[in-house]
Formats: sequence, C-alpha cells, structure tokens
Amino acid sequence: MMGRNNMVKSDRHELLTRYINGNPFLTDDDLAQLLGVSIQTVRLDRAELAIPEMRERVKKMARGAYQNLRAIEDHEVVGELVNLDIGHQGLSILLVNEEMTLRKTRVLDGQYLFAQANSLALALIDTEVALTGTSKVSFKRPVFRGEKVVARAVITRKKGNKYMVRVSSHVQDELVFQGKFLVFDLSEEVNRLENSY
Amino acid sequence: MMGRNNMVKSDRHELLTRYINGNPFLTDDDLAQLLGVSIQTVRLDRAELAIPEMRERVKKMARGAYQNLRAIEDHEVVGELVNLDIGHQGLSILLVNEEMTLRKTRVLDGQYLFAQANSLALALIDTEVALTGTSKVSFKRPVFRGEKVVARAVITRKKGNKYMVRVSSHVQDELVFQGKFLVFDLSEEVNRLENSY
Repeated sequence: MMGRNNMVKSDRHELLTRYINGNPFLTDDDLAQLLGVSIQTVRLDRAELAIPEMRERVKKMARGAYQNLRAIEDHEVVGELVNLDIGHQGLSILLVNEEMTLRKTRVLDGQYLFAQANSLALALIDTEVALTGTSKVSFKRPVFRGEKVVARAVITRKKGNKYMVRVSSHVQDELVFQGKFLVFDLSEEVNRLENSY
Repeated sequence: MMGRNNMVKSDRHELLTRYINGNPFLTDDDLAQLLGVSIQTVRLDRAELAIPEMRERVKKMARGAYQNLRAIEDHEVVGELVNLDIGHQGLSILLVNEEMTLRKTRVLDGQYLFAQANSLALALIDTEVALTGTSKVSFKRPVFRGEKVVARAVITRKKGNKYMVRVSSHVQDELVFQGKFLVFDLSEEVNRLENSY
C-alpha cells in the first residue's frame, strides 16, 4: 500500500507548508500525524523550508495583532488573537479546557465558539464603535477538552456602515463551526449624538 | 390629556396582571412607571389581586425550576432559571453587570445574550444528552449595565430527535434579542454507542 509516508519529499514539503499556512498552531506532533511521518522528519522538513517551530510562529504572528485592535479590547477577545489585518481578516485560537465543557456530554459549550467568532468579527471592524446585529451559526461537530479551535474571520462585504463577516473554525483540518455575522459600525451615529450636545 | 393614570381600575388591574405574567421580574417601581401611577397604587392593586411582591413571585417560580434540569446542569444555565416546563418552555433572567459589557460601547457583549438563550434552549430538552446544531440570532437593541434580561424559550417543533426552540429576550417590555435554535437529542446515539462496547 502506498501511504503518505511514501510520498516524494517535494510533495510532502508542499503539503506541510499548506497545513501550516492553514493552521499555524499545528505542532510537529500534529504535523507528523497528518503527514504520516515521524516527528524527526517534520523537524528536518521545517529546517529545510526555514519554517520556525510552532511557538515561534505564533509569537511572531501575535506580536502585532493586539496592537491593531480598535472596536474591542484585548481581554474582550475570546481566545488568543494571533493575526489581525484590520478591515480584512483575522485569526484567533481557543484552547478548550474543562471549565468550557458541558459536564453531561464533555463537549465544548457552544457559547464559547460563538463568543470566539463574534469577538473576532468585531475585532476586524476598523472603527471605535461596533456592534453585532444578526448572526447565523452552525455547529458542525462536537469539540472536546484539549482541542485547539482556530477561528478565521474574513470581511466578505461592506455596504455603508454594515459589514458581513464570515467565520470558520477548525480543529486540525476539521470544520467545527461556521458563522456569518452582520456587524454595524456605529461610530458616525455616536459622533452625531456627541456633536448634538 | 387622558393619561394611563386616568384609566379605570379594572383596566389597570388587567394591564398589571398582563405585565406581571409577561415578565415576573418587574418591580413595583417598574410597574408604576409602566402604568404611570404611584408605587403606592401598584401595591394596593397587587394586594387586591393577591399577587405577591416580585421577590416572592420569583422565589416561588424558581423553587422547582432547577430540579427539572436534565440535559445541562445548574451552573451551566447562563442567568437564573426561574421556570422550566421541560419539553415545552422555560424562562431565565440575566442581570447585566459591568464585567459583561464591552468597555468601548458600555453595551452588553452579545455572547451573553447568546449564552443565556442557548443554555435555556438546551435546558428545555427532555433528555440527558442534547447539543445545539444551528442557530440564527438577532440583536434588536443594545442592553446596558443594570438591566434585567428576561429570556423566554419555547419548543415550537419536534421532528424525530430534532427540536426547534425559539427564544425571545426582553428588557422590561422591549425586545432585545431573538433566536432560533435547532437542538439535537443525542441520547439514542449515545446509548447505541455504549451498547456496542
């Protein structure tokens, strides 16, 4: 049987790069499992491709992310913000601990997936005052303790002061949550109110 | 001008009863404002109608509510559960404190309204294992610190193991949030898995 561990190195390098671009939080262990190779191989591959290890990658990404926040504050982002290209897109990660799970099912309480996505959607808006108007969300598969949820949000449409933000959240390469958020930039209205005093 | 304070007593009694049935958390002060009469009048009206004061009403309602919980646990209900007619409908109240508000806008973070509604929707399902599949929510007006959000959830449809739950949340008589939750009863699937071991 021809397994992934038998694939040629250039194909593996391409796949490895694609996995890491898709989810920078994958550890060498995660990558080894995904590619069906040893951790040692992943390390060598990364060295050849000059891709730093996970902690370094995340630290580098996160450095600027929080500084760019406008509509909400650091501690209001649910999960860790690791990338924020304000006005366009952003990325956050939520590490699921036991307190976030429902005791009966041992499954992550949906409110956390909602909160991660909603706060990331607000973070994307390039304004001082933003609020969510409506949202439509879908829980694709249960998430368990210890899993890392990577949420990726993109502004897909802007009309006047209304923004459509789409959020997809993955654990490894599995989609666990999807949401659309209609967010309002209320800065003009607030300014108008303040000027009328 | 003919104001509400000029309405006949029987009409006022009817309105008072309707307000309290709609939202048992209305204080005498709230009711006085809504009816445009003095607090003293509200107290006399309640005495005539044999309606206990707010604290007593809520205590009485809440007594049985938590005992009926199945799919989620006491502390997993966001807000205070005050009524639970399992399989049918339920009511919870969330008192908004400062930590729940976004600093920039001083507005309640939408995740709390979602969490209150979602946990109430799960609480309604008469099973040991329930999970939210999809939901569509709409934030109708900003909610501020000190406000009391009364969420009312009703199972509107059941098909196989799928339940449609509608939630409306009000502050006084204003709609602040609306949501539809599609919830799955997974008890059969879990039993099947357990029996296959």
